[in-house]
Amino acid sequence: MKLGCCYYPEHWPEDMWAGDAARMVNIGLSRVRIGEFAWSRIEPQPGQYDWDWLDRAIATLGDAGLEIILGTPTATPPKWLVDSMPDMVAIDADGNPRGFGSRRHYCFSHAGYRKECERIVTAMVQRYGDHPAITAWQTDNEYGCHDTVVSYSDAAAQGFRRWLAENYPDVDALNSAWGNVFWSMEYPDFEAVDPPNLTVTEPNPAHVLDYRRFASDEVVTFNRLQADIIRAHSPDRDIIHNYMGFFTEFDHHKVGQDLNVASWDSYPLGFLEQFFFSDDEKHRYARQGHPDIAAFHHDLYRGCANGRWSVMEQQPGPVNWARYNPAPLPGMVRLWTLEAMAHGAELVSYFRWRQAPFAQEQMHAGLLRPDNVEDIGASEARQAARDITMLGALENDRSEVALLFSYEAAWLLETQPQGQSFRYLELVFAMYSGLRRLGLNVDIVAPEAELDGYAMVVAPTLPIMLSSLIARLGALQVPVLIGPRSGSKTDDFSIPANLAPGELQDLIPLKITRVESLRPGITAKADSGEISRWLEHVETELTAETGLEDGRGILFASGGLRYLAAWPDAALLEDIFGRMAAEAGLSVDKLPQDLRMRRLGDLCFAFNYGTQTVELPETANRDYILGSSRIAPADVAVWKAG
Amino acid sequence: MKLGCCYYPEHWPEDMWAGDAARMVNIGLSRVRIGEFAWSRIEPQPGQYDWDWLDRAIATLGDAGLEIILGTPTATPPKWLVDSMPDMVAIDADGNPRGFGSRRHYCFSHAGYRKECERIVTAMVQRYGDHPAITAWQTDNEYGCHDTVVSYSDAAAQGFRRWLAENYPDVDALNSAWGNVFWSMEYPDFEAVDPPNLTVTEPNPAHVLDYRRFASDEVVTFNRLQADIIRAHSPDRDIIHNYMGFFTEFDHHKVGQDLNVASWDSYPLGFLEQFFFSDDEKHRYARQGHPDIAAFHHDLYRGCANGRWSVMEQQPGPVNWARYNPAPLPGMVRLWTLEAMAHGAELVSYFRWRQAPFAQEQMHAGLLRPDNVEDIGASEARQAARDITMLGALENDRSEVALLFSYEAAWLLETQPQGQSFRYLELVFAMYSGLRRLGLNVDIVAPEAELDGYAMVVAPTLPIMLSSLIARLGALQVPVLIGPRSGSKTDDFSIPANLAPGELQDLIPLKITRVESLRPGITAKADSGEISRWLEHVETELTAETGLEDGRGILFASGGLRYLAAWPDAALLEDIFGRMAAEAGLSVDKLPQDLRMRRLGDLCFAFNYGTQTVELPETANRDYILGSSRIAPADVAVWKAG
Amino acid sequence: MKLGCCYYPEHWPEDMWAGDAARMVNIGLSRVRIGEFAWSRIEPQPGQYDWDWLDRAIATLGDAGLEIILGTPTATPPKWLVDSMPDMVAIDADGNPRGFGSRRHYCFSHAGYRKECERIVTAMVQRYGDHPAITAWQTDNEYGCHDTVVSYSDAAAQGFRRWLAENYPDVDALNSAWGNVFWSMEYPDFEAVDPPNLTVTEPNPAHVLDYRRFASDEVVTFNRLQADIIRAHSPDRDIIHNYMGFFTEFDHHKVGQDLNVASWDSYPLGFLEQFFFSDDEKHRYARQGHPDIAAFHHDLYRGCANGRWSVMEQQPGPVNWARYNPAPLPGMVRLWTLEAMAHGAELVSYFRWRQAPFAQEQMHAGLLRPDNVEDIGASEARQAARDITMLGALENDRSEVALLFSYEAAWLLETQPQGQSFRYLELVFAMYSGLRRLGLNVDIVAPEAELDGYAMVVAPTLPIMLSSLIARLGALQVPVLIGPRSGSKTDDFSIPANLAPGELQDLIPLKITRVESLRPGITAKADSGEISRWLEHVETELTAETGLEDGRGILFASGGLRYLAAWPDAALLEDIFGRMAAEAGLSVDKLPQDLRMRRLGDLCFAFNYGTQTVELPETANRDYILGSSRIAPADVAVWKAG
Ligand SMILES: [Zn+2]
Ligand SMILES: [Zn+2]
Ligand SMILES: [Zn+2]
Repeated sequence: MKLGCCYYPEHWPEDMWAGDAARMVNIGLSRVRIGEFAWSRIEPQPGQYDWDWLDRAIATLGDAGLEIILGTPTATPPKWLVDSMPDMVAIDADGNPRGFGSRRHYCFSHAGYRKECERIVTAMVQRYGDHPAITAWQTDNEYGCHDTVVSYSDAAAQGFRRWLAENYPDVDALNSAWGNVFWSMEYPDFEAVDPPNLTVTEPNPAHVLDYRRFASDEVVTFNRLQADIIRAHSPDRDIIHNYMGFFTEFDHHKVGQDLNVASWDSYPLGFLEQFFFSDDEKHRYARQGHPDIAAFHHDLYRGCANGRWSVMEQQPGPVNWARYNPAPLPGMVRLWTLEAMAHGAELVSYFRWRQAPFAQEQMHAGLLRPDNVEDIGASEARQAARDITMLGALENDRSEVALLFSYEAAWLLETQPQGQSFRYLELVFAMYSGLRRLGLNVDIVAPEAELDGYAMVVAPTLPIMLSSLIARLGALQVPVLIGPRSGSKTDDFSIPANLAPGELQDLIPLKITRVESLRPGITAKADSGEISRWLEHVETELTAETGLEDGRGILFASGGLRYLAAWPDAALLEDIFGRMAAEAGLSVDKLPQDLRMRRLGDLCFAFNYGTQTVELPETANRDYILGSSRIAPADVAVWKAG
Repeated sequence: MKLGCCYYPEHWPEDMWAGDAARMVNIGLSRVRIGEFAWSRIEPQPGQYDWDWLDRAIATLGDAGLEIILGTPTATPPKWLVDSMPDMVAIDADGNPRGFGSRRHYCFSHAGYRKECERIVTAMVQRYGDHPAITAWQTDNEYGCHDTVVSYSDAAAQGFRRWLAENYPDVDALNSAWGNVFWSMEYPDFEAVDPPNLTVTEPNPAHVLDYRRFASDEVVTFNRLQADIIRAHSPDRDIIHNYMGFFTEFDHHKVGQDLNVASWDSYPLGFLEQFFFSDDEKHRYARQGHPDIAAFHHDLYRGCANGRWSVMEQQPGPVNWARYNPAPLPGMVRLWTLEAMAHGAELVSYFRWRQAPFAQEQMHAGLLRPDNVEDIGASEARQAARDITMLGALENDRSEVALLFSYEAAWLLETQPQGQSFRYLELVFAMYSGLRRLGLNVDIVAPEAELDGYAMVVAPTLPIMLSSLIARLGALQVPVLIGPRSGSKTDDFSIPANLAPGELQDLIPLKITRVESLRPGITAKADSGEISRWLEHVETELTAETGLEDGRGILFASGGLRYLAAWPDAALLEDIFGRMAAEAGLSVDKLPQDLRMRRLGDLCFAFNYGTQTVELPETANRDYILGSSRIAPADVAVWKAG
Repeated sequence: MKLGCCYYPEHWPEDMWAGDAARMVNIGLSRVRIGEFAWSRIEPQPGQYDWDWLDRAIATLGDAGLEIILGTPTATPPKWLVDSMPDMVAIDADGNPRGFGSRRHYCFSHAGYRKECERIVTAMVQRYGDHPAITAWQTDNEYGCHDTVVSYSDAAAQGFRRWLAENYPDVDALNSAWGNVFWSMEYPDFEAVDPPNLTVTEPNPAHVLDYRRFASDEVVTFNRLQADIIRAHSPDRDIIHNYMGFFTEFDHHKVGQDLNVASWDSYPLGFLEQFFFSDDEKHRYARQGHPDIAAFHHDLYRGCANGRWSVMEQQPGPVNWARYNPAPLPGMVRLWTLEAMAHGAELVSYFRWRQAPFAQEQMHAGLLRPDNVEDIGASEARQAARDITMLGALENDRSEVALLFSYEAAWLLETQPQGQSFRYLELVFAMYSGLRRLGLNVDIVAPEAELDGYAMVVAPTLPIMLSSLIARLGALQVPVLIGPRSGSKTDDFSIPANLAPGELQDLIPLKITRVESLRPGITAKADSGEISRWLEHVETELTAETGLEDGRGILFASGGLRYLAAWPDAALLEDIFGRMAAEAGLSVDKLPQDLRMRRLGDLCFAFNYGTQTVELPETANRDYILGSSRIAPADVAVWKAG
């Protein structure tokens, strides 16, 4: 695995560049990402390019032996460009423009802006496409950051109408598919359809879901426009985009098809603070991040571009953008780095090289402090570089468990939560975490992914299940868990004619006749665990494998396939996954709360996310390459698999 | 009492209609409401009516013996209509349009839309007005749903100016009545007055109250436009509108004057979740609803149209629109049905016949599941039908207690809460609940209602008290309770010259010299109970009937009239109502927490809203028609009054 | 000290005026503020002045012996004026106009409105400038009330561009100062710069800070426009403005330079409810206000206009505008009045004379009730008047402690809190309160203020520290405390090249290498106290004076200067201030929780903010002028300093 960093030569005096490059190499970095926010320097005035500084920056970095990932600058169009076509910005759901002054001030559907992107990317790729120091390209930056996927602009409205015309034979088909008769919402023609905002009450969920699908597709084609140009002019260079954490606004699997490498931006402390974790978890893991946050995304994005993936931005210290921004526990930067390795990353690139003293992110740490002194992150990166060398090269292999992940499921469940505590990512994360607490290796994959070779398959929830998936699940000979609400909707966002779980009833003979969403505090005992939030009423002749105290069944099995009809807690998941693993012939151990393990190739890694030393469960005859059986807080142990 | 359901023939293949009708009859339903969202099918293109399908639907239902309530479709104008006059939609307080894509996308004040309503209603009534299967008409649907009473459109602004010109002799009178001199808010003429939105800080409360009065009057005249057409062309049919729960945006008493029957849409579980109940209550009654929710509205709407009232939409299972949507406890659908009977309903109509698999309400249960199988609601409706037959016909009679309810009071107190926990509906509900826990029957009536014949009168609060009401109260020979803030305002939203309670001082010699709103947690002991939220300082020579520990009096009596100068808790209300009932010669029992009772005609009903069996307080010699003295959860007992 | 009240002759029948004036004098008031909301009566139609009523009102009041403070009416332009130039209103951050219908409906940057203000103020001052009854002028009313300082109108945008052109040599300098290269935010010219609203994510903090500076300067020049006119035409009259509580949107020190007297509007109960106090404090002090609220503002505004200050509006009973509005404990109006005297006020003026029965503030108490009877406030004012006479005249002298207060610091920390619990006013108040609990007298002063003569200096936080201040601090021979984040920013909102605390490192050799913001619940023990919210990592060779359990230092001293690297609790502050006071030779006592003391001239005052009687700490040989050593709730004791 390689290490790298994100660097902004345009932010620093040119006389610092060579020293920076030398220090990067000295620390053990071999890659550097540059350029992605530099449009105003590359093209200070319309059509007047200034390549000189970038030529010199690339030369300086390349001469130091660094491989360069060059970013296209389309996330930050300059002021003169926005002023030349003010309608290029996105429009929010209230109808307000999302204007210039920060970043991502563009609408994915604006044809004029796409032309400009085509122009600037072509110019860049033509200039640097075969430069020997350029090893890869990053398209744009963090698509969707700051809630920028969905726009309600005129450009988006027009795009949506085109998209509908491509996806429905005629407007009658659309009216029928959406059930527009419901409240006299029938459209006379595609031109009459508007985006689903500014309605009196909730719009038709089918309308919303199609708008989300459309918006996601706009990201896909926006990215493809750049990927095609790069592929044409910069042969043999990887095309990469940097995804974000806990972000589902567009289909990362589809965008990934146009990439060579999926990468993501890993900020465990910020994500812990900003997302769905409990106050207890936010307290316990304030300086480490929840032990499954980074791994979850590693395993998710490994499934997006044929298994190749990287961490493009790695938190190196406190960040600036969460509600509260503590510092990582000493050791965590190294831990996160080695954990990425254990999950098969090609690269961990720290964001950023040196903390900028100005502008929006001036409180975001770098490897170097603003006064150019090495910060804690740099020393941990240096140590990680030595560790990586010692561990040698590792190859990704198939994990034990496949966990099915669907972006469309996220959109659908946001559109129709039915109970406000039913959150897609939270359910997926709970199941992922349940598997990981048993020490299982997980691949998070698209529902379309090949499932052969996995010892277990888990679908936390898939409201829309294609027939082809059901057929493939039916052919598997391994334990499969299907979570609540799976198969509850048709592709048109309707209830299946035979009710949920729809065609899945071919594999397991049960029917969901009624669902309940439950307010916090309403729970029910289920064996050793508890259910809450969501409960389905099941009509079946099967005997329940697990039931509630009132006799109602919530877990049913047919062959190797189980259907879970409620929202489970950790204890219940442990039971279920333990049973499945036993059937699959996998040996599992319940790990201590703060410990996580991963096997890759012939190495076993263990990571201590706690603030207390952890003794590894069993220690006999281990050949430790790093650490020992007693793992200090924020420390790592690695040994040869026995 | 009759049973019925809400049915949407336009949602289903025509070959299902006859079977549906037959099953309705089989279950015991005799009425069916149709048509209220079908405009896009009745008039698919401007001026081109398609009556054929509706003719056949009416014929099919009528042939099965069902009585039809036909809804005017004005709650959902079709897209072509909205596109032909885009300014017909309401404008929200921020100035944004409330556009097409769901329902109720119109401004009550838009003259062009009123013309269109007149046209479509005339066309429908002319076609079906004397059809023998049509037994009643419903105007529009749920006026005000989704916060649609108040609009800030140009049409509304113009309407408001007209309304002001009709209600004030000249603009000087308006300036004086509102006290516009206060912040130089004086208007040179009526044309200069705008709606009270987008002001820098709170607008003049008198301005707001008049805007609320105007907006309510717009609903009245909008409804009257339709009622007049129906009355002219469909003789002897009832005109009905379906009101909502906990909704006070327009004056239901005034709208009721143009109706033959007031109806309402009863969703006890959704209302529990969405309104002011405590977390404990939301937990305890999650699957039953608070025991006073349905009864409160029954007793309220019985007072809106000369005593005739129905439940037009009855929750038959889980709904889709609350934050959390659990399923009713088995038995609750029957319980709610029989409770409506006990309060004197003419009809309970379940919403809806069959759960729709598509569009916004696909997660809203029906009597039938989407797969056309009978759901729990259907079997409970069937049982209820049998019960109703056994119980026979019942006539409404006057209740023991009159509780005075004023929509204007709600507007006024929302406009000027003075303490954010002072909520009109919550105070009224607390007093209603206090009476009901003592087993008293209550009529909730307008302040203008005839009060003779009641054994007790309770006015939870009436900030504006007309002289005529005070005179009528003074003439009563029964215990009367007047709650805090009563008489505290003139009709112009000013403080009376002699302070609160204004002219009421003629009946009870006391003066409110100061009021306090109290943050949660600040309470004071008052005999066996406690006050919180609101405390008035009383200047009087009367000796207090109840006082605080600091000696301050909070309950004063003069003759049979009591004035309560604070926000009471349940224990204090029990004391006060117990004392009043004793004076009135009414015998009361404190009911178990989850039990409610009602007498109607010669029957006594008891309803168990709890999850534990309740033993009736006294059981000797009762002649049970339904149930017994031990009432299971969600069960009902009925016996002949001894 | 004088007493007065706020009076609105235009609200009352002319035949009440003389009686009102006589009663004011009878109660002991000698001043009266009038006129500030009366524009629509002074100029009912464009250009047509009606001075007659105001002439008579001034004559009536003056004839009674009252000194009049005449307000310019520019906070409430009349409807005809707004209709004549609708773009004069402010625009909110969402782009919506903040229209007519309440007050303060103007944008400070609108040139047309400034012209109108110039016209009306000139007309008023020319008419009354040398009237013998006029003793002072109040400009406008409560600048910034209802969040009206910052506007995003076109007028503001143009003003901002002009301001930038005046403050930066050219646009390149601006781009460089702000670090606009960061996200390609570089501007081609000043005309391209927009206000920092409606951006996709947070705008550049330097952009925001300059916008706040600009907006503050607009208030300064708006006020100066009026002050210049008054000064020219009304010789020897004081120019006053009435500031608000806990309000930092504009630089009160700068506005104060154009005033003769700073005044403020003191509503202790409303402020307690609306601001950052804990639930416990809001409960404990619900009817008294936190014991430091009034004193904090007295000591703050005394520092704004050369030491001359007044209370222009004093809460006389319950107010109408807080979430909850309880009544003051009997005695509090007198206590607040005498406390203002103890802090050196020239005037306490009660708001308002008589409670208005109409419009927005009808629930705001006055000295008189709406029925013209004296309310509690009047009787307490009468008692206070007697007390003041007994105590005689007092002169302000320098306090023991200088606490440095910076409006710019507030803007900066709001722009970049870094952790959402880091609130400027809360930190300043905590330090102020810590000093006051030790019985120390405090002057709150601008960073530019002369510091010689103080025994201690405390800077709670000054992110931007000018070299001149550092030089002056270095020259002091007294204990100085510098709080966290001080010196952490340059004037351009960048991190100093040598890191925080920047140039302050010349005085104390330490460097902040990293900062952490901590979520609620994350704390660390520090000697007898605790830190939370904010923790800095300090690089230094100094030995910490106070440290955490993990060995990290948080308090360092060099000479008499201490740097505090965390957010302290009350116990830790007590330690630190106690140590500093000892070094300064000040004797301190830890006061009982609800007691506060102040010395002025040769008098000592003690105020009991609790609901229990307090025994004064030491009582020997005191010569009590008011009260005794046992102070009842809401009571006051005054004695000759020993
Ligand atoms: Zn981002
Ligand atoms: Zn509704
Ligand atoms: Zn104010």
